[in-house]
Amino acid sequence: MRITILGGGGFLGRKLAVRLARDGTLGGRPITAMTLFDLAAPPEFPAPFPLTCLGGDIAELPEAAIPAGTDVVFHLAAVVSGAAEADYDLGRRVNLRGTDAVIDACRRLAAPPRLVFTSSIATFSGGQGTILNDDARQIPANSYGTQKAAAEMLLADATRRGFMDAVCLRLPTIIVRPGRPNKAASSFFSAIVREPMLGLETELPVPDDFAVWVASPRSAVEWLIHAAAMDTAPLGLDRSFNLPGMSVKVGEILAAMDQVRQGASSLVKRVHDPVTAGIVGGWPAGFNAERAPANGFRRHEPLIDVIRAFVSDDLEATRIDRAIG
Amino acid sequence: MRITILGGGGFLGRKLAVRLARDGTLGGRPITAMTLFDLAAPPEFPAPFPLTCLGGDIAELPEAAIPAGTDVVFHLAAVVSGAAEADYDLGRRVNLRGTDAVIDACRRLAAPPRLVFTSSIATFSGGQGTILNDDARQIPANSYGTQKAAAEMLLADATRRGFMDAVCLRLPTIIVRPGRPNKAASSFFSAIVREPMLGLETELPVPDDFAVWVASPRSAVEWLIHAAAMDTAPLGLDRSFNLPGMSVKVGEILAAMDQVRQGASSLVKRVHDPVTAGIVGGWPAGFNAERAPANGFRRHEPLIDVIRAFVSDDLEATRIDRAIG
Repeated sequence: MRITILGGGGFLGRKLAVRLARDGTLGGRPITAMTLFDLAAPPEFPAPFPLTCLGGDIAELPEAAIPAGTDVVFHLAAVVSGAAEADYDLGRRVNLRGTDAVIDACRRLAAPPRLVFTSSIATFSGGQGTILNDDARQIPANSYGTQKAAAEMLLADATRRGFMDAVCLRLPTIIVRPGRPNKAASSFFSAIVREPMLGLETELPVPDDFAVWVASPRSAVEWLIHAAAMDTAPLGLDRSFNLPGMSVKVGEILAAMDQVRQGASSLVKRVHDPVTAGIVGGWPAGFNAERAPANGFRRHEPLIDVIRAFVSDDLEATRIDRAIG
Repeated sequence: MRITILGGGGFLGRKLAVRLARDGTLGGRPITAMTLFDLAAPPEFPAPFPLTCLGGDIAELPEAAIPAGTDVVFHLAAVVSGAAEADYDLGRRVNLRGTDAVIDACRRLAAPPRLVFTSSIATFSGGQGTILNDDARQIPANSYGTQKAAAEMLLADATRRGFMDAVCLRLPTIIVRPGRPNKAASSFFSAIVREPMLGLETELPVPDDFAVWVASPRSAVEWLIHAAAMDTAPLGLDRSFNLPGMSVKVGEILAAMDQVRQGASSLVKRVHDPVTAGIVGGWPAGFNAERAPANGFRRHEPLIDVIRAFVSDDLEATRIDRAIG
């Protein structure tokens, strides 16, 4: 089985690549080769199969990124919400033209590959009062969500036409992301755990009872792997899933953190930010995601496990990265 | 008021242009100039204002198509369902790249224009048993519907960003289209009236009790004009309308035709076509379209008036066209 990860240098792409290298198999079949593609060539790492790391522009996807015989493509490459909002042309180029380039690369293969696409809950709007069912309409309130929703449609059509066999995952807000605070409006949902765990102060721009739909990196990787090997015959025209994340209140995240490290939440300063609160306040507070578990996507682990996993999986690397950077 | 009609050489674009030339005004404001753009430059016709007719590729839209000072853009240019299904690249180029080019042209203007876009009920699926509400999800079953649904999203986002002020109209199947039978799966819904009215036999590929969501050319033009001048402030993020068409059975169309010309339906031969029946059988049989009338879109005229309007507006021109062609 030959695998490509587009966006293989990003946070989730990297975790997925390392996990697949550790497993050596996907869906019970041995992995024989893997290609990682990102804007800059992702760093190599030890793997039990040939690993090719390529850099380039996804809108001008080189043929080597999805070589002949590719069985599974993970398409995680994207310009994220803050950047797509700041630069319309860049978002459109990467998130739409890039998806078209991926479709064209799959069309050229002799057999249609399974394609797993990371879409987002940013394709929805609604606000704190809203819990969306699986048949809810996508009415995005930002360019990133618009481009992701449009890409889902193009991939579903490419599937219907036989160019690929796509499964689109509308990922919740992922916590806890390692690295540094960034300009994404959702950045603080990770920072309120990551920064105190590093002994650093951070700001909380929304009230403690603000509800957010989240998932852990571990669940995200599990879902990606499940999507790569699942039976897609029952899906019909609808190739997209709202995933079984968790609707949690910010105060619950802080309380879980304090269970892992007592008093850590004292480093979280309440500084209301009307701009950030306005953006995240437009997102739905949760989903009734029933179709995904019915199709084998595992239910989410408890919140306390999310904090513990960050400490065991990512905290030390984040600390070293900060010390170097 | 300066107006552009993209797709101004097509059936609806032409009717709209002639109507606006006759009115001389739109939304109570005098029309000062009009530009018609299509693949081939549309033929000129007498108008009480300067008329510019241009030909070209919408994906490489020339600046002259939407010149400085344009107040209203009607974006009707499309590769239709049969052609977009037969040629994926062409459909994508015109229906998606073309819409991006229109967005970019509007971004260049000093003031965001009103943009009226013709989307389609082909953005939905469902089948004979399905009557869709205004909040129904778009799950298209063909490339044309996919591209139209994605374009709606891009236009809504362009509106949110202040590039334009878009209103998207999901047009029902338009009957009675003049011209000749073509390869569109929906072609027969017009042919079963047009051909007998010309004294010609035609085939009906579905049962008489098959239900279809239709609108007349007259209603379509009224809706386009309303969309160009309506108050869009209440629309929020949702810029698209399911229009108040009519759900009619094929047998009712034939009965209405016989009221206008006795015995005409005897020229309609029942020849079941499983391919065509399969395609149109995937479309929803109707809509509960409440938001559009609540926003001023007029309700549809009775079916008998649709047949009479075809006879008075289009039958003679169709007869001449056939005699020449």
